[in-house]
Amino acid sequence: MVDIWSPKTKFRIWYEIEAHACDAQAKLGVIPQANADAVWTAKDVEFDVAKIDAIEAVTKHDVIAFLTHLSDIIGGDVARFVHQGMTSSDVLDTTLNVQLTRAADILIADIEALLAALKRRALEHKDTVRIGRSHGIHAEPVTMGLTFARFYAEMDRNLARMRTARDEIATGAISGAVGTFANIDPAVEEHVCAQLGLKPEPISTQVIPRDRHAAFFATLGVVASSIENIAIEIRHMQRTEVLEAEEFFSKGQKGSSAMPHKRNPVLTENLTGLARIVRMAVVPAMENVALWHERDISHSSVERAIGPDATITLDFALARLTGVIDKLVIYPDNMIANMNKFRGLVHSQRVLLALTQKGVSREDSYRLVQRNAMRVWEQGADFLTELKADPEVTAAMSIEEIEDKFDLGYHTKHVDTIFARVFGA
Amino acid sequence: MVDIWSPKTKFRIWYEIEAHACDAQAKLGVIPQANADAVWTAKDVEFDVAKIDAIEAVTKHDVIAFLTHLSDIIGGDVARFVHQGMTSSDVLDTTLNVQLTRAADILIADIEALLAALKRRALEHKDTVRIGRSHGIHAEPVTMGLTFARFYAEMDRNLARMRTARDEIATGAISGAVGTFANIDPAVEEHVCAQLGLKPEPISTQVIPRDRHAAFFATLGVVASSIENIAIEIRHMQRTEVLEAEEFFSKGQKGSSAMPHKRNPVLTENLTGLARIVRMAVVPAMENVALWHERDISHSSVERAIGPDATITLDFALARLTGVIDKLVIYPDNMIANMNKFRGLVHSQRVLLALTQKGVSREDSYRLVQRNAMRVWEQGADFLTELKADPEVTAAMSIEEIEDKFDLGYHTKHVDTIFARVFGA
Amino acid sequence: MVDIWSPKTKFRIWYEIEAHACDAQAKLGVIPQANADAVWTAKDVEFDVAKIDAIEAVTKHDVIAFLTHLSDIIGGDVARFVHQGMTSSDVLDTTLNVQLTRAADILIADIEALLAALKRRALEHKDTVRIGRSHGIHAEPVTMGLTFARFYAEMDRNLARMRTARDEIATGAISGAVGTFANIDPAVEEHVCAQLGLKPEPISTQVIPRDRHAAFFATLGVVASSIENIAIEIRHMQRTEVLEAEEFFSKGQKGSSAMPHKRNPVLTENLTGLARIVRMAVVPAMENVALWHERDISHSSVERAIGPDATITLDFALARLTGVIDKLVIYPDNMIANMNKFRGLVHSQRVLLALTQKGVSREDSYRLVQRNAMRVWEQGADFLTELKADPEVTAAMSIEEIEDKFDLGYHTKHVDTIFARVFGA
Amino acid sequence: MVDIWSPKTKFRIWYEIEAHACDAQAKLGVIPQANADAVWTAKDVEFDVAKIDAIEAVTKHDVIAFLTHLSDIIGGDVARFVHQGMTSSDVLDTTLNVQLTRAADILIADIEALLAALKRRALEHKDTVRIGRSHGIHAEPVTMGLTFARFYAEMDRNLARMRTARDEIATGAISGAVGTFANIDPAVEEHVCAQLGLKPEPISTQVIPRDRHAAFFATLGVVASSIENIAIEIRHMQRTEVLEAEEFFSKGQKGSSAMPHKRNPVLTENLTGLARIVRMAVVPAMENVALWHERDISHSSVERAIGPDATITLDFALARLTGVIDKLVIYPDNMIANMNKFRGLVHSQRVLLALTQKGVSREDSYRLVQRNAMRVWEQGADFLTELKADPEVTAAMSIEEIEDKFDLGYHTKHVDTIFARVFGA
Repeated sequence: MVDIWSPKTKFRIWYEIEAHACDAQAKLGVIPQANADAVWTAKDVEFDVAKIDAIEAVTKHDVIAFLTHLSDIIGGDVARFVHQGMTSSDVLDTTLNVQLTRAADILIADIEALLAALKRRALEHKDTVRIGRSHGIHAEPVTMGLTFARFYAEMDRNLARMRTARDEIATGAISGAVGTFANIDPAVEEHVCAQLGLKPEPISTQVIPRDRHAAFFATLGVVASSIENIAIEIRHMQRTEVLEAEEFFSKGQKGSSAMPHKRNPVLTENLTGLARIVRMAVVPAMENVALWHERDISHSSVERAIGPDATITLDFALARLTGVIDKLVIYPDNMIANMNKFRGLVHSQRVLLALTQKGVSREDSYRLVQRNAMRVWEQGADFLTELKADPEVTAAMSIEEIEDKFDLGYHTKHVDTIFARVFGA
Repeated sequence: MVDIWSPKTKFRIWYEIEAHACDAQAKLGVIPQANADAVWTAKDVEFDVAKIDAIEAVTKHDVIAFLTHLSDIIGGDVARFVHQGMTSSDVLDTTLNVQLTRAADILIADIEALLAALKRRALEHKDTVRIGRSHGIHAEPVTMGLTFARFYAEMDRNLARMRTARDEIATGAISGAVGTFANIDPAVEEHVCAQLGLKPEPISTQVIPRDRHAAFFATLGVVASSIENIAIEIRHMQRTEVLEAEEFFSKGQKGSSAMPHKRNPVLTENLTGLARIVRMAVVPAMENVALWHERDISHSSVERAIGPDATITLDFALARLTGVIDKLVIYPDNMIANMNKFRGLVHSQRVLLALTQKGVSREDSYRLVQRNAMRVWEQGADFLTELKADPEVTAAMSIEEIEDKFDLGYHTKHVDTIFARVFGA
Repeated sequence: MVDIWSPKTKFRIWYEIEAHACDAQAKLGVIPQANADAVWTAKDVEFDVAKIDAIEAVTKHDVIAFLTHLSDIIGGDVARFVHQGMTSSDVLDTTLNVQLTRAADILIADIEALLAALKRRALEHKDTVRIGRSHGIHAEPVTMGLTFARFYAEMDRNLARMRTARDEIATGAISGAVGTFANIDPAVEEHVCAQLGLKPEPISTQVIPRDRHAAFFATLGVVASSIENIAIEIRHMQRTEVLEAEEFFSKGQKGSSAMPHKRNPVLTENLTGLARIVRMAVVPAMENVALWHERDISHSSVERAIGPDATITLDFALARLTGVIDKLVIYPDNMIANMNKFRGLVHSQRVLLALTQKGVSREDSYRLVQRNAMRVWEQGADFLTELKADPEVTAAMSIEEIEDKFDLGYHTKHVDTIFARVFGA
Repeated sequence: MVDIWSPKTKFRIWYEIEAHACDAQAKLGVIPQANADAVWTAKDVEFDVAKIDAIEAVTKHDVIAFLTHLSDIIGGDVARFVHQGMTSSDVLDTTLNVQLTRAADILIADIEALLAALKRRALEHKDTVRIGRSHGIHAEPVTMGLTFARFYAEMDRNLARMRTARDEIATGAISGAVGTFANIDPAVEEHVCAQLGLKPEPISTQVIPRDRHAAFFATLGVVASSIENIAIEIRHMQRTEVLEAEEFFSKGQKGSSAMPHKRNPVLTENLTGLARIVRMAVVPAMENVALWHERDISHSSVERAIGPDATITLDFALARLTGVIDKLVIYPDNMIANMNKFRGLVHSQRVLLALTQKGVSREDSYRLVQRNAMRVWEQGADFLTELKADPEVTAAMSIEEIEDKFDLGYHTKHVDTIFARVFGA
C-alpha cells in the first residue's frame, strides 16, 4: 500500500497516462504515430525523483517538471507532442483515482482475508457457550461462534461497500482545462481510461467531481468503525475480570517494563486508535466537495494527506485485525465460569415467560421473578433453589418444569439457522 | 418527513410490529389465534401520547408504558400475549429502521425532483456560453448547461447512493434479548419483516448492527456536501461583481432593513449551513458502531437527535434547492460581459496550442503567448490585436489562423457529446 | 436552559437592545429623549410570538416583523426612532451572545455542582482501596477517592475553560451594516453592551467574528469528552464481572421488560451518547468561521441548531452526571475481591523493584518475577507462596522482606499528598 | 517544527527525563549520587536511532529498547539505577508534553510574526476605501485597513488562546504505573518538571489526563479556521471579476501549463485545505479523552499521527499566510471601480436614514429609496440623478442634502476609533 503512494509510482502512472494519450492522439491524426511510439522508449526507465523535484523547485509546477524530465529522456523533438491539449489536472486527477482504485483493491483483499479468519473462528466456536451481555450486564447465553459470525456479517457488508466505493472511484478524465474537450478529443479520454481499467468520467470540470472521493473516504470510515467494534469486544473479553480471550502473546514479548504478569490487549487498543485516524478523513473529504466553479485547489493538500494516511492506516489495521482474530486465544472454561457468576439469574427471562404461559399475569410473573432474583443478587442465593422453594412459583409450575428452564440448549437451538443465514446453507 | 418522527407515527409502527408478531405467533401455535385477531381491534385507534408518557414517567420504560396503554384499549386478557418472547429492542430497533426507510423514500423522491429541475435548466441553457473558472480565475468558455449537467450527474450518483443506503437500512430484527431467538421463533421475524417491507437482519444481537446506520448517515453527509457544492456555485454567480444569476426574488420580500437594493442569495447561503448540519451527524453515527458486547444504549440518544435532525434538514434542503434551481434567474448578457473582461485572454490556451502545432517549441510558444497576454493584463490591450502585431507570432501563423482561434464554437463543440453521456442519447 | 432559547426570551433581549440603544441615541441628541423614554413603556409587555411570526411570514424578515409588532404596542410615532442607524445583525448577533453568555453561566453552575459532588465522594472514599488498571488489566492498587479526585481535577480544568469561553463570548456589536459605525455612534454600542453585561467587540463587520463561537463550542466539546470519560469509568465499574459500583436504582424502576435482575448503567450509557451530540457541534462551529467578506449568513442555520442543542444537552448531561455521582452505590468488598483475583500478582512490580535494589540485575529480576508470576497465572498458584519457595528469590531477599512487599499501605502512602494538590491543603 | 518530532529529539528528551530523575533519586538517597552523575556522561552522545529500533523489533517495547541502548553507552552498572521506580508512561507522556509545549512556542512565534505583518498592512491601507460586502453583495464602504485590522484582532485572540493551550499542556508526570507514586517519591516528579520547564500534573493515572490534549488540539483547530477565514477573503479578492488583490507572483513561476495569463491564488487555496487538515485532529483528540480506568493505549496511535501532523501543518500554514499577507499586492483603483459598479446604490442606506430623520415614515422612506434603487438596478440609471429627480424625495430633502449623503468620508469617520481599539491608542 505504501508503494502506491510513492513518488515513483506516481510518476509511473503519469507516464502511462501521457503515453496512452499520445497513442490516442496519433490514431486521431493529431500527432505523428512515430512520436507516439517513441514515447514508449521510456517504458522501462526509472524516473529520477530527485531531478524532477529539483526542476519543480524552480518552476513551482509539478507536471511541467515531470514533462521536462521526460523530455530529457526521450528527446525534445518527441516530447513536444506529449501532453498536447491536456491540462495538468487530466494527469493528476486520473492518477489519484488510479491510486485510490489500487488502494481499494488491496483493502478488498484485506477484508477477504479477515472474513476467512472470522469464518474459521466462527465455525470453530459455533457451540462455545458464553454469556451474552447488554449494557455490560449479563443477559442470556450466546455462543462465541455467534460473536465471530456477526463480525463476519458486518465485514461482509463492508466488503460490498468497498466494492461499490472502488467502482465509484475508478474513473478518469482527460477533458481539458474546464472539462469541455476543447483542445482534446473525447476519444483520448476513452482510450486512456480503457488502458488503465477506468471508466471515463461522464462530465468533469478541470477535475473529477469530489463527491466520488467523499463517498470513498466515508466508506473507509465505516470500515474503520467496524474494526473498532471488533477491537472493543476483544478488549472487553481480555480485561482481567472477564478473561474470556487474549490476544496471542509471543514468547519474547515483554508486556510491561514493571508488571511481567500483564498481558495487555495492545493490538486491539491500537486498532481503536487507528479507527479514529481513518475516520478523521471523512469530514475533510466531504468539505472538499464544494470547489469553486470549475475547480479550486483547496482539496489537493487534504488529499495528499488523507489519500495515503487513510488507506495505509486502514490496510495496516485490517491486516493487524486479521492476525488478532486468527490467533486469538479463547478460554471456554472462563466463559462458563463467568456465566455462572450469579447462580442461575441468566435464566430469569425464561422463567418469566414460562410463568406467563402458565396463566400468571404479566405483572405477577414479573413480581415473582424479581422477588427471587433479588435474593440471589443480594444474598448470594441460588436462583433455581429459590424458585423451587417459592410456593407462588410452584403453584404455577412443577419442579420439573422449573428445572427445564435452566437448560442451555434452549438458547443455542437456532445457532444453525443463524449460521446458515450468514454463511449459506 | 416531520410526521415520520412524531410520537404518533412511532407508536403506530410499534403497534403494527406487535400485531404482526401476534399473527406469526398464532400461526406457530404459541398464542391463541383469537388473541392475535383481537389485537387488530385497535387498528384504527389513535394512541394517546400523553397517557403513554405519563405511564413512562412512572415505569421509566417506554415499551412497557406503551404495552400498558395498549392493554387498556384491547383488554388485559388479550394483551397478555402481546410482546410475548420479544425484547424491547425488537420493537424499537425495527421501528427505527422503518422510519429511516421511509425517510429514505422521501429523500429519494426529493432527489428525483431536483434532478428533474436540473435537467430542465441544463437543456434550457445548453448553449448559454459563460466563462469557465479555475481558482476563481477565468479559464476557458463553458456553457451554463454544462454546469447544470454536472450537478445533475452528481445528484444522479447521490440518487444511486441513497437507494443503496435505503436498501441497507431496510432490515428488521425480532430476535430476542441477545439475538439468539431463544424465546421466539425466527418465523416471527420473517413474518413481521415481510409485512413491513423489510428484510430480516441475518444476524443481530439485541440490536441491529450499527454499521448500517453509519453507512446511512454517511450517505446523507455526501448528499449534503453536493448540495453545498451547488449552493456555493450559485452564491458565486450572484455576487455583485459577477451577477450571472440570482435567486428568484418575490415582490413582497424585503432584502435588508437598510439597503433595499440588495438581493442576497440567502437561500443558498442557508443551504451552505444546512449542509454542515447534516454532515455533523456522520461522525457520531460512526462512533455508534462500537457497542459493548450484545449492545449498550449509548447510540440511542444520538439517534434520537440525528435521526430526525439529519433527515428533516436534508429533506428541507433538497426541496429548497429544487426551488432555487427551478426559479434561478440567469443573466446570459452578463455572462458574455464577464467573459470579455480581459479582452480575449481566455483564448490564450488555444493560441499556445496552435503555435506548438505550427512547429514552435513548447517553451517559445509559452513565451510568445505570455508576452502578449501580459500586455493585455497590465496595459489593457486587446489580445487579438496584440497577437496580430507580434512579428514572431505572425511568422508562425497567418492573421486568419490567429483570428480563427478566437471562435467560441471551438469550445462548445463537444457539449452534445457530454449531454449524451449525462442524459442519454 | 431551554428558556434561554425560547422565542419569548429572544424577543425580550431584542427589545432591551433596542430600548438601551434609544437611550444612548437620545443622550447623543440623535433622537428625542421623550421617544427613548417612551420605548420603555413596553417594558412589562409580553410580546406576542404568534403575531410576530405572522408578520415575518409576509415580510420574510424577522427583525422588521418584530419592529412592526413593537410599533403596534408603543405607537408608530415613538417607534420611528427605534432601530435607527442599526442593522438587523446588531440586534441578532448581540442577542446570540447574550444567550450564549447566559448558557455559559448555567453550565458554570452545573460544573460547580458536579465538582461539589465529586469532592464529597472523593473525601468519602479517599482510603477505599481498589485495583488500578491499565489496558483493562490489573496493575497496582489505587483508591476510589483517587478516581473521584482525578475527575474533580479534570472538571476543575473544565470550569476554568468554561469561564474563559464565557468571557470570550460576552461581547456585543452595534456597529452597522459593515461594522464602520457609519450610521451610529460607537457610544451606542458601548452603552448597550454595558447595560447587558457585555464588552463591545473591538472590531466587527456586520457580525461578531465567529472564531469566538468556534472557541466556545470547542470548549463544550472538551467538557462533553470529560463527561464521557467519567461515564465510561462507571459503566466499566458496573459491568457484571466487575461490579464495584452501580448507578442508583430507584424502587419503582424496571430495568428490562424481560430480565428483572438486570441493573443497567443506562444513565452513563446515555451520557456517552450525549457527549457525542455535544461534540458534533465543534466542527460546524469551526466551519462557520470563514464567512465571505463582511458576512454571509451560512453560519446562521448552524447556530440555530447547535446553539440550543449543544448547550441544552450539555446542561442536561452535567446535571445527570452530578446525580449519578451523588448517588453512586460503591461496593468496597467487591473492590477487594477483584483485587485478590490473581492471588498477589498485583505486587509483582514491588517485588521486581526490591530485587533490583538488592543488587540483582534488571534482567534477572525481571526473569525471576516473570517465572513466578506465570505460575500464578497459569496454574492458580499464590504469588507470595511461590516467591518464598523460589531459592533464587530467597537468595536475594529474606522471607520477611518478601512479605513486606505485599503491604497495601505502600501504595496509598501518597494519597494525602495528591489530595492536597487537588483540593488544597 | 519537524525537528521536534524526530526520533533524535524524542530520545534526547527521554534521556533528559531519566537523567534528571536520577538526580532527584540520588538527592532522596534512593540511588547513589555517583550513579546519577554518571548518567550525565552520555550528555553529548548522539543516540543511534537505528540500533534502538533494532532492539525494539525484538522486545516490542520502545522504552526498554532505549534503556538497553543507554546501558550499552554508560555501562550496565550505572544503568541499573536508571528508570528505577518509573513506568514507561512517565517518560513517554512527559516527553509528548515537552514536544507539544515546544510546538506551541513555535506556533506562538508564528502568530506573532503574522500579527506584525497584519498590523503593517493595516496601517498601510487604513484609508484605502473599498466596498464592504454582505452575502457577497455590495453593502457600504469600508477600508482595506479595517479588513487587515479585523484579521489582526482575530489572530490576537488566537495568540491568547495558544498561550492558554501552551500553559495547559506544559505539565509532566512521574507518578508510576497507576499514578500513586507507590515506587517513586513525588519529589522526583517535581524536580524533573522544574528542570524541563513543566508543572507537575496535580493528579495523573498512568498517563496525563487527555482533556489537556483535547483542549490543545481544539485550539489548533480554531487557529486553523481563522487561517481559512483570511484565505477565503484573499481568494475572493483575487477572483477575476473582483481583482482587488493578488498573491505575489514571482518572475520564474508558471501559473498554469496552458493559460499563461492566469495568476491563481494557489497559496490561499492551499491554506484552505491545510485548515481542514489541522481541524481533522480535533474530534479524534476529543475521542481520546475517555480512556479505560487508569489508561488504555488507544490514544497513542492517534497522537503519533496528529501530534506532528497538526502542529507541522499549522506551523507551515501560519508561515505561508504571513508571507502572503506581507507581499499581497493591493489594487486600490480596482477597489474604487468595483464600488462604483452600481452608480451610487451603496449610499442607499444613508438616504433611507436621512429621509426618516426628515420626518418621512419608515415605511415611506423605504418605498422611496427602493423605487429609485430599482431604476438604477434594472435600467442602469444613476442613483443620485434619480433621487434628485424624484419629487417625493426632493419634497423631504434639498438637493444639497441629497448630495451630502454621497460623501465617502461619512463611512470612514470612525476608522481611527476602531484602530485605537485594535492596536491601542
